[in-house]
Amino acid sequence: MKKLINQTDTLFDESLQGFAKAHADIITLNADPCFISRKSNKTANQVRLISGGGSGHEPLHAGFVGTGMLDAACPGQIFTSPTPDQMLAATQEIAGDAGVLFIVKNYAGDVMNFEIASEMLDTENSSVLVNDDVSLAKDHSTGRRGVAGTLMVEKITGAAAEQSASLVECKNVAQRVITNTASMGVALSSCTVPALGKPTFDLSETEMEMGVGIHGERGHETLPLGSASEIVEIIANAIHEDLQPKAGQSALLHINGLGGTPLMEQYLIYDLAELYWQKRGVKIIRSLVGSYTTSLDMAGVSITLTLLDDELTALWDAPVHTASLRWGC
Amino acid sequence: MKKLINQTDTLFDESLQGFAKAHADIITLNADPCFISRKSNKTANQVRLISGGGSGHEPLHAGFVGTGMLDAACPGQIFTSPTPDQMLAATQEIAGDAGVLFIVKNYAGDVMNFEIASEMLDTENSSVLVNDDVSLAKDHSTGRRGVAGTLMVEKITGAAAEQSASLVECKNVAQRVITNTASMGVALSSCTVPALGKPTFDLSETEMEMGVGIHGERGHETLPLGSASEIVEIIANAIHEDLQPKAGQSALLHINGLGGTPLMEQYLIYDLAELYWQKRGVKIIRSLVGSYTTSLDMAGVSITLTLLDDELTALWDAPVHTASLRWGC
Repeated sequence: MKKLINQTDTLFDESLQGFAKAHADIITLNADPCFISRKSNKTANQVRLISGGGSGHEPLHAGFVGTGMLDAACPGQIFTSPTPDQMLAATQEIAGDAGVLFIVKNYAGDVMNFEIASEMLDTENSSVLVNDDVSLAKDHSTGRRGVAGTLMVEKITGAAAEQSASLVECKNVAQRVITNTASMGVALSSCTVPALGKPTFDLSETEMEMGVGIHGERGHETLPLGSASEIVEIIANAIHEDLQPKAGQSALLHINGLGGTPLMEQYLIYDLAELYWQKRGVKIIRSLVGSYTTSLDMAGVSITLTLLDDELTALWDAPVHTASLRWGC
Repeated sequence: MKKLINQTDTLFDESLQGFAKAHADIITLNADPCFISRKSNKTANQVRLISGGGSGHEPLHAGFVGTGMLDAACPGQIFTSPTPDQMLAATQEIAGDAGVLFIVKNYAGDVMNFEIASEMLDTENSSVLVNDDVSLAKDHSTGRRGVAGTLMVEKITGAAAEQSASLVECKNVAQRVITNTASMGVALSSCTVPALGKPTFDLSETEMEMGVGIHGERGHETLPLGSASEIVEIIANAIHEDLQPKAGQSALLHINGLGGTPLMEQYLIYDLAELYWQKRGVKIIRSLVGSYTTSLDMAGVSITLTLLDDELTALWDAPVHTASLRWGC
């Protein structure tokens, strides 16, 4: 295993310290229990948003803490759920009078720990489950996973909270983004979890893993390595089938690198995906291309489509100032 | 070779098309001769900045075209210099009355072709050579290479041009950034050039390549794989030796991923590099962490330090609106 680290058991702390130093103008790191919170103030009557999950997906979630997006993020160890005490401490640090919305990716550990925190809290709180990964059937026993579409939920709901939407309104907006968002990923390589020291699965030079999640697990199918056009066709078909957008529908297209894939390939995938939906009358009116929801050093991409209406578009466009997403301020 | 492409000979065009579609609000792509130019207007009496170079380093340079940074970028094929006709066409498209400054990374092909373009132009023009790579001696036969420090030159000079500095003033600012900027990189893997189809050099599981450039060439030394602390010590020593900052000096610290290295490792390197200079009394007052000057899918990072004064700091902070660098607007 070749990584730019000192020891596997200090990677988490050292990386977070670097993040906190590099973005000291935007966020504060609380070391124990571990959470990152925004520095810019909200008024007491604005809803707070908290997310979190295992590390290894950077910049998700810590990179999205700041004005117009998350109020706090609770990072677990690599691919490991954060614990309820982190969520409790984060909530106590940032809570106002308007309540807290937890944005939770649909993984058993995350769901359980956010639920425990929710029950222990005096603060009014609610939660939404992000489950955008269409590589799993809707009736999968544990439901679909939350992947790169989480960013859209956090950005758009964050804008609503910044504009003083109530807790119910924030939850409704988040739910509307979740309903209108679908993602799917493909890997050309496994990732290597530092503590494991070797790839989590093997793929030959002529294979690709279709329908991967973001935790180094295998996808739903190992296929012969296809061309970019063939790959986009498979993924976009699954997303299109799920969302069933009508002709004339506006949408945001997000190409997400999984950690080891250069931007040059991501833009090529964008080109093909944009063309796919253009042919079907879907208007791509917003775009985001880059490695935002990663799986350590995995080579691969995911495609996310979010169907937009005027309100969601305006919330997407609203100012945001975080370590990894910034515009309008 | 596993890449998300259709064919090696269409990668360049398809990727640029995707880039142009994704950022149609900021830039325009001219297909032949190939250049990218900004959409936002400048007045006739503002200096124009043009850069360019081989592709494979994305987002450099096309991702830095827009308000407050470059007016145009001329991309060559992968790791191949752009041709004079691209620079001529870009200049003719964007020129005003105040002249054009070419920002050129110090590679023989780039230097030659920008010189040819310069001689053929009626428009008043000048150029600066970026040569921040301290892994090569200052008296190296072809001089030092331009690497990740190019971003600082483009950002800071772009702000000066936006504030209507004259061509001489822009050139002076650019030169001041160049004098005060030093970089060095390390690779844990080679990159794979699509047309070649295999890594450009071999490294064993226990080796690292110190002092790499951004074109898949070997570095100045193959060393046993070190810890992150050891790696930072080697690189930071070389940079410190070159710039010789005094105690109390302010600086910008840029950790740059080379394409295949996750953000988690980049932040860890930031932590260690910040500590290195803190111990020596250098105040890191600005930071940039991310994969901005890449070498396709190479695993590795570079460290760049730019010594700042009040003027350079204000120009760094000035609004910028490009595909890959955006703040203040």
